[in-house]
Amino acid sequence: MLPLLEPQVPVVPEAVAPCCPPLTERPLTADEAEKTARMFKALGDPVRLRLFSAVASHEGGEACVCDISDVGVSQPTVSHHLKKLKEAGLLTSERRGTWVYYRVEPSVVAAMGQMLGTLG
Amino acid sequence: MLPLLEPQVPVVPEAVAPCCPPLTERPLTADEAEKTARMFKALGDPVRLRLFSAVASHEGGEACVCDISDVGVSQPTVSHHLKKLKEAGLLTSERRGTWVYYRVEPSVVAAMGQMLGTLG
Repeated sequence: MLPLLEPQVPVVPEAVAPCCPPLTERPLTADEAEKTARMFKALGDPVRLRLFSAVASHEGGEACVCDISDVGVSQPTVSHHLKKLKEAGLLTSERRGTWVYYRVEPSVVAAMGQMLGTLG
Repeated sequence: MLPLLEPQVPVVPEAVAPCCPPLTERPLTADEAEKTARMFKALGDPVRLRLFSAVASHEGGEACVCDISDVGVSQPTVSHHLKKLKEAGLLTSERRGTWVYYRVEPSVVAAMGQMLGTLG
């Protein structure tokens, strides 16, 4: 009997997967708005938005808490906010040795950009 | 003596004008993050996001409270949220007769899309 293959699971949890058409196409449903508002909300805090841009612009496209020191908040606060961004589906993380490295989840962020970008 | 000409004022208030480079370019400054987080926060509420998409996708690119009836909140609540979106710089408004018509402010929304779009 053949071993069962690991099923191909999507990297992005369903709850935060990009879901929605461009905002000019049609009104969002309640369900779509619920999912998407979560992502916008995660970027709606100035400290969190700075941390997100710090990760996005860091060399190699990833950063750990150890790389981020100039936002003027404590290391536990940085960790807290990076976790929130991850829960919203905007960052992924990987532990390597002592540190957790965060990276932007491009598909989710691009989907947000697309929802807005068609309005310009 | 010549009459003073009305000065050319920008349509978008300075406080909410698109300000920032793509998020991959460099970390946002505290001031840039403060301005931009306000816009993301405005879209970070499910009802507000639905109303925003209702305006954006409405015929002619504009809508009044009278056009929006299927989001399941009262008319005063719709008005309240549309005002919040306007304060964040995402909508403009114009009174015509009985109703205030709202329209997406394309430059601001496109700037948000651009900040995110480069990450895809």
